[in-house]
Amino acid sequence: MKINGDRFLVDLEALREFGKQGTGVIRPAFSPADIDSRRWLAEKFEDCGLTPRWDPAANLFGIPPQPGKPILIGSHSDTQPQGGWLDGAYGVVLALEVARTCQEVGGPPVAVVSFQDEESAFMPLTGSCFFSGKLSRDALYDLTNAAGQRYGDLASALSELEEAETLTPSLFSAFLEAHIEQGPVLDQAGEIIGVVETIVGSRQFEVTIKGQQNHAGTTPMALRRDAVTGFGAFITNLEERFTKIATPRSVWTIGRVDVHPNAPSIVPGELNCSVQIRDGSLAQLDAMCEMIQKAAAQTAVERNLDISLLETKAVAPIDMDDGIVEQFCEAAKSTVPGAWRRMPSGALHDAMNLAPQLPTGMIFVPSIGGISHAFEEDTQREHLVAGVQVMADTVAR
Amino acid sequence: MKINGDRFLVDLEALREFGKQGTGVIRPAFSPADIDSRRWLAEKFEDCGLTPRWDPAANLFGIPPQPGKPILIGSHSDTQPQGGWLDGAYGVVLALEVARTCQEVGGPPVAVVSFQDEESAFMPLTGSCFFSGKLSRDALYDLTNAAGQRYGDLASALSELEEAETLTPSLFSAFLEAHIEQGPVLDQAGEIIGVVETIVGSRQFEVTIKGQQNHAGTTPMALRRDAVTGFGAFITNLEERFTKIATPRSVWTIGRVDVHPNAPSIVPGELNCSVQIRDGSLAQLDAMCEMIQKAAAQTAVERNLDISLLETKAVAPIDMDDGIVEQFCEAAKSTVPGAWRRMPSGALHDAMNLAPQLPTGMIFVPSIGGISHAFEEDTQREHLVAGVQVMADTVAR
Repeated sequence: MKINGDRFLVDLEALREFGKQGTGVIRPAFSPADIDSRRWLAEKFEDCGLTPRWDPAANLFGIPPQPGKPILIGSHSDTQPQGGWLDGAYGVVLALEVARTCQEVGGPPVAVVSFQDEESAFMPLTGSCFFSGKLSRDALYDLTNAAGQRYGDLASALSELEEAETLTPSLFSAFLEAHIEQGPVLDQAGEIIGVVETIVGSRQFEVTIKGQQNHAGTTPMALRRDAVTGFGAFITNLEERFTKIATPRSVWTIGRVDVHPNAPSIVPGELNCSVQIRDGSLAQLDAMCEMIQKAAAQTAVERNLDISLLETKAVAPIDMDDGIVEQFCEAAKSTVPGAWRRMPSGALHDAMNLAPQLPTGMIFVPSIGGISHAFEEDTQREHLVAGVQVMADTVAR
Repeated sequence: MKINGDRFLVDLEALREFGKQGTGVIRPAFSPADIDSRRWLAEKFEDCGLTPRWDPAANLFGIPPQPGKPILIGSHSDTQPQGGWLDGAYGVVLALEVARTCQEVGGPPVAVVSFQDEESAFMPLTGSCFFSGKLSRDALYDLTNAAGQRYGDLASALSELEEAETLTPSLFSAFLEAHIEQGPVLDQAGEIIGVVETIVGSRQFEVTIKGQQNHAGTTPMALRRDAVTGFGAFITNLEERFTKIATPRSVWTIGRVDVHPNAPSIVPGELNCSVQIRDGSLAQLDAMCEMIQKAAAQTAVERNLDISLLETKAVAPIDMDDGIVEQFCEAAKSTVPGAWRRMPSGALHDAMNLAPQLPTGMIFVPSIGGISHAFEEDTQREHLVAGVQVMADTVAR
């Protein structure tokens, strides 16, 4: 089943115009650019015989005319406050091209979806949280964004939603999502397709290191309980322990650090930081958590500090459907032989919400330089088209 | 020459009333409490035969009637925005008691001084900077405090300053200062007098560690250039190098740390921090600076980071006068045998400005728990009195 790469690229560039800013796109959920782009998408659905259906979350579906349960393909078309042009948009237009091809050549029926607010204007993966039943309509409508706008007010302002009805995963036979990688792995390896095996889970801790604030001139080193040098020791202890157990896919990040009172002439008395870990294996996440606990306890003893850990987030890893993974691999093998791999997804995607409900799978195409969520985000055109072909071949199997 | 300890303590408590707040004192330069306390001091000077003299900086002197060059003793009576009751006030009232005793028993003539704004409402050691000639009257008067008030305007509002004349170090034969230690050394050792040999010098650097900001989920560890883990390695490298060369008196502090963009899910791309070192020896300061440079260069190579250093402050160490140090030691030996030591001053004091102009010396009494510049600041009463006696005995020699 051969897709039309040129037609697909024309549509992808057309979607790019909504909220275009230089090489990037500004199209957060419910912005005028987001609403206009959804209406444009609804027209594109009608043009190829799909029926546009809006649900109460403003998720936009394109439903094929055939009876039975279609395969659902899609992603999101909203963007970060300053986003890249591909991100989820690639997955939505890819789905349109695959569904359109299926209608034309008599392939299996494919439905398309653009989930609303994947990018956390209200909460992470908002639209697919509603669709998968994790979030009730009332809870959804009470969410507010940074500007203080209620989700329910913005949704109610759309005339299309007056007759919106909730669609459920049970209407579909599977969910497939394509996305740019948002990381450097495929690009650095010179590969074209990544077949996602797992969306990694994460844990996040708030670490508080308490020492004794003091005068930087008059407090001898031997009498200090310095939160910042203690933090240095904590990092060293953590690196040593993680190095022993980490797989190439384990990542850990200390992204936020706050020092008190944060003045050059004062021995710092307290430091707070985040420690975030991600891995595709629950056992590995548990092992890494144990290492964080041990590194903290070791540092507290070595440096005479009080160190406390508070787990603030825990997301379990989610495996993609084995059968779908195999189908993607077969399709990749024939479309881009020798230029594909199995890999985890380090970032969250809507597929994470669908996987507990439907057989679910994901593929990646490369991000040039690993850049995403930035105006510079881009992917080679032939790689974008290869992704559409791999998806179509998988659907046709 | 025996001082009157009870009388001294009564005066010290009386001075405490100006700006008293619980156990602490709020008496910044030119606050109503500061002005009232200076006027009270001027009266105390007159009561014992000293002539009050205000200079254009609102430094307040008490000049003895005898001809010739008196010994100048004193410190400062202004406080931090939330200060302790002793700090410099102890040194001023101690000077009053020694001068008064000298007038009564026919000791050598002693002048008293309370320098204005030692505590940096306008700049560090403001009054003694002016007195020692480091700061011109025009430059002084153009200084502004955090409230935007001009030094010149506040000084001109004092009727006493209408006839103010500049006094110079050449009018005096020596400068002696007593102060609470502001550190834990004497208190922890159970000692009563510290004879200062050197006011330590300091160097301060702004360190910038630049890596590559990235996605915390999709950037493999091996491809990261993480400013925070690089900071941890920098601390480890610095500690290793400093441990090799540090004397018990060398101190170093990373008091300020700022991470960018400082979010849990982003590999941090940049970290800025202060590195401050202090030591009594210029050669040691130089050696420590070299270690900072080397640790930064080592870390940059090991972690593939760009690390730059900018020296933002350099204060040379200042030795106290050898002869005066010996006299203080002899006096301490007889007043508090076995309970005194020679030591450096890790904090700046007005004596630092006087030392290049006059034979200058300092003594410390303990700070309970090493606490200073805080409401809890305190010293045992018999230790306060012992300091006055050691100063009087030194003057009498």
